[in-house]
Amino acid sequence: MSWTLAQIAEHVNGQVVGDPDYTIRSVGTLTHAGPEDLSFLANNKYRKFLASTSAGAVIVAAGAEADITTNLIVVEDAYVAYAQAASLMYPIPKAAAGIHPSAWVHPEARLADNVSIAAQVTIDRGAVIADGASIGPGSVIEADVSIGRDSVIKANVTLCREVQVGERVVIHPGVVIGADGFGIANNQGRWIKVPQVGRVIIGDDVEIGANTTIDRGAIDDTIIGQGVKLDNQIQIGHNVTIGDHTVIAGCVGIAGSTHIGSHCAIGGGTGIAGHIEITDGVQLTGMSMVTKSITEAGVYSSGIPIEPARQWHKNVIRYRQMDKLFERVTLLEKRLKD
Amino acid sequence: MSWTLAQIAEHVNGQVVGDPDYTIRSVGTLTHAGPEDLSFLANNKYRKFLASTSAGAVIVAAGAEADITTNLIVVEDAYVAYAQAASLMYPIPKAAAGIHPSAWVHPEARLADNVSIAAQVTIDRGAVIADGASIGPGSVIEADVSIGRDSVIKANVTLCREVQVGERVVIHPGVVIGADGFGIANNQGRWIKVPQVGRVIIGDDVEIGANTTIDRGAIDDTIIGQGVKLDNQIQIGHNVTIGDHTVIAGCVGIAGSTHIGSHCAIGGGTGIAGHIEITDGVQLTGMSMVTKSITEAGVYSSGIPIEPARQWHKNVIRYRQMDKLFERVTLLEKRLKD
Amino acid sequence: MSWTLAQIAEHVNGQVVGDPDYTIRSVGTLTHAGPEDLSFLANNKYRKFLASTSAGAVIVAAGAEADITTNLIVVEDAYVAYAQAASLMYPIPKAAAGIHPSAWVHPEARLADNVSIAAQVTIDRGAVIADGASIGPGSVIEADVSIGRDSVIKANVTLCREVQVGERVVIHPGVVIGADGFGIANNQGRWIKVPQVGRVIIGDDVEIGANTTIDRGAIDDTIIGQGVKLDNQIQIGHNVTIGDHTVIAGCVGIAGSTHIGSHCAIGGGTGIAGHIEITDGVQLTGMSMVTKSITEAGVYSSGIPIEPARQWHKNVIRYRQMDKLFERVTLLEKRLKD
Repeated sequence: MSWTLAQIAEHVNGQVVGDPDYTIRSVGTLTHAGPEDLSFLANNKYRKFLASTSAGAVIVAAGAEADITTNLIVVEDAYVAYAQAASLMYPIPKAAAGIHPSAWVHPEARLADNVSIAAQVTIDRGAVIADGASIGPGSVIEADVSIGRDSVIKANVTLCREVQVGERVVIHPGVVIGADGFGIANNQGRWIKVPQVGRVIIGDDVEIGANTTIDRGAIDDTIIGQGVKLDNQIQIGHNVTIGDHTVIAGCVGIAGSTHIGSHCAIGGGTGIAGHIEITDGVQLTGMSMVTKSITEAGVYSSGIPIEPARQWHKNVIRYRQMDKLFERVTLLEKRLKD
Repeated sequence: MSWTLAQIAEHVNGQVVGDPDYTIRSVGTLTHAGPEDLSFLANNKYRKFLASTSAGAVIVAAGAEADITTNLIVVEDAYVAYAQAASLMYPIPKAAAGIHPSAWVHPEARLADNVSIAAQVTIDRGAVIADGASIGPGSVIEADVSIGRDSVIKANVTLCREVQVGERVVIHPGVVIGADGFGIANNQGRWIKVPQVGRVIIGDDVEIGANTTIDRGAIDDTIIGQGVKLDNQIQIGHNVTIGDHTVIAGCVGIAGSTHIGSHCAIGGGTGIAGHIEITDGVQLTGMSMVTKSITEAGVYSSGIPIEPARQWHKNVIRYRQMDKLFERVTLLEKRLKD
Repeated sequence: MSWTLAQIAEHVNGQVVGDPDYTIRSVGTLTHAGPEDLSFLANNKYRKFLASTSAGAVIVAAGAEADITTNLIVVEDAYVAYAQAASLMYPIPKAAAGIHPSAWVHPEARLADNVSIAAQVTIDRGAVIADGASIGPGSVIEADVSIGRDSVIKANVTLCREVQVGERVVIHPGVVIGADGFGIANNQGRWIKVPQVGRVIIGDDVEIGANTTIDRGAIDDTIIGQGVKLDNQIQIGHNVTIGDHTVIAGCVGIAGSTHIGSHCAIGGGTGIAGHIEITDGVQLTGMSMVTKSITEAGVYSSGIPIEPARQWHKNVIRYRQMDKLFERVTLLEKRLKD
């Protein structure tokens, strides 16, 4: 397959600077791209590689095109345009419709005609799988799960009973949705189980990264809004709700019954306490520690980055002496006043 | 199915205030419950919803019942009573006994008569599965694993060779127990593997959350005590021991050879160094960093919660200047003395 | 099986002190070993157990043998020698060659003659599996994956399309390699997917712990160097590269496009930002927060360990008042000068 720069520019709503009939076959980074590759510049850190790139063409934002001699496609947002161009060139491969002979599908599951069920899959009673959806090898779809049109469940995924998955959702390998939340009550020193009877509802156009876990609700449902994008190894507790178009990077943990707004962006490794509210439009930088509700949009951070171990030792000691330092300064102030 | 308040009150050892013949069919939260739902008040944060709840009845602790007009079940501990009531109403569904035709069971595995082996399961040589136990779809039970009575292994679980699982244990999807611990030795710049020959022993009444991993011992065994409750995505290193009735929230990492006492409670995202001892009755709040042994019961914490990013930047700089600040204060004290 | 101390000493390049014909059958820790067990002393913390050990023989480093009455094997590095001895006594069991009847292998996959394919495995079109490699139960090998000689893929692993695995690699259960990286672009408030078209390349002699995830490259490949050892539940983002013989402990998260050098050692729970460079020979202690490139080898740390909760509360408040304290000290200095 190949595309002219004119075709790509039309698809991404951009302008060609250079030869519109130049032919592109694949994509490449500025440093590794060859003459048949389309590249892009979205992070100024990589601007230095523009002068020497061998890319056949480069997508750049308007205003960034000065002094570049290679073919360009000039757009409003270079990363969005690259995403659109790459999606044109690399459409998600559609698994062939059909049920693999090694899959086991309960006779009372309801599968639309053109679904794709891979090898070693298990689909239990009452599951409903809509048109165009596909289930990857080794995945387990428990009773009464529903999966919307054109959703893609990859390999070795587990969707527990009654999980509801919207349309065009992508769920990567190893994900577990709908396992019991961590509901326990302490009965005279021993922990007894609180039955987890809520469901998990996943909105349309959600993507969920590898080995992420989302617990079912204790009573009400756990809800992931439309267009939410979750990276790998995220843990979402029972009865959490996440607003539409929020993105969460890897290794984030969100404790139970916390509500996160729409259009938030949560950095990797962040921990969020249970039973709090985070309003719309909040950004948290990586490894943030959130213990209270956040009522105003904005950027929030915590954590102290690394330093050489020797200094770190010293600073930790100083940290623990701060309280005494405050007392010393107060005393100094008093003396000086006297 | 339905239950009268009198039946539920008897089961949870409580007193009905209101109509003992009132009929309940399900459970609900104070805000969403309807007239056929039983609700409860265990967290004072939600007390404000009591006045307007449509719940058919509410479980409350003695002393909290004032001014409530709905039916009540008054108990000593509302959350424990709710757990008991919900367990009555939603018993863990028992998988039908039998071996699914798509499962593969080694002829030298020993399965009690009424076990349930789901689709796509693998059970290897020498595995022993006791009465009433069930193995979920896609799970792998390696050689010489033993699983006690009435234990429930959910979907896509891996129990590696020789793992011993007690009775009434629940293991959620994606869990891996008994993989090799991280045992490596540096031989002139290259890392060589240290064989991991210990086992993992899981006590009775343990529950293990989705995608949690527990490594086998290097030489001695890794041991999880009775009644321990583990949330999702916990990592437990080789030769760790965890005392009875300890609970650990999600995303906790425990490095090798650390011993944790009984009746501890470890908050989510906590990291615990290797080769240390944590005594009984220790509570760690979320995201704690534990580098040394803890010899006294009590509550311990670390971490600095988020602040607006601009202040955070400033405070991190201040943190790094603390040592100089101490010098400045010492100098001031000296001058003032002079 | 049994071995004389002379045989073991020869294998580990050590000297017997005591009876070279003494027979050993297994290994044990100093505290639990019996007369047929070989033990070792590598961590001085455990030296106190030497006097009372019942071990048949103990491996110790030269210089540490004073006052010990049991049989010894004296070596240069006790832990390396123990690893070598234990590997002699406990060789990795080789799965029998053959394809289990419940496995599904695409007719266009290419399997060498003596590979071992376990139950419930899926191997897709174009996969290539070399001599001596084994695939554990329930694992999924997607299209065009290649697995090198003598590599061991354990149970319920997912290797996504085009992943390249070197020779003698060990991949533990639940690992996902080659899932899509977290590539999204914000198109007027909605996130659109950036196709992930790179691969993952795993070098020879790599070991990867349970439930670890390694994302495929966005354009270029994600690369794990030779001899790298990864513990459990590590998350490695797209286009990360990790240099040869680097080791990473559990629960580490590495964001996309970061390059880590050779012979690094990264402590558990560490978080590393994207698009940075870490040079060779860097050590990071547990729970480090890395936000910028590290250009010099050495030991780096961050994080403030736990303290009793009451002190922690006070110190967090003091931390937030630091900026004002600096102002107060500056004012004091000014006054004193005046």
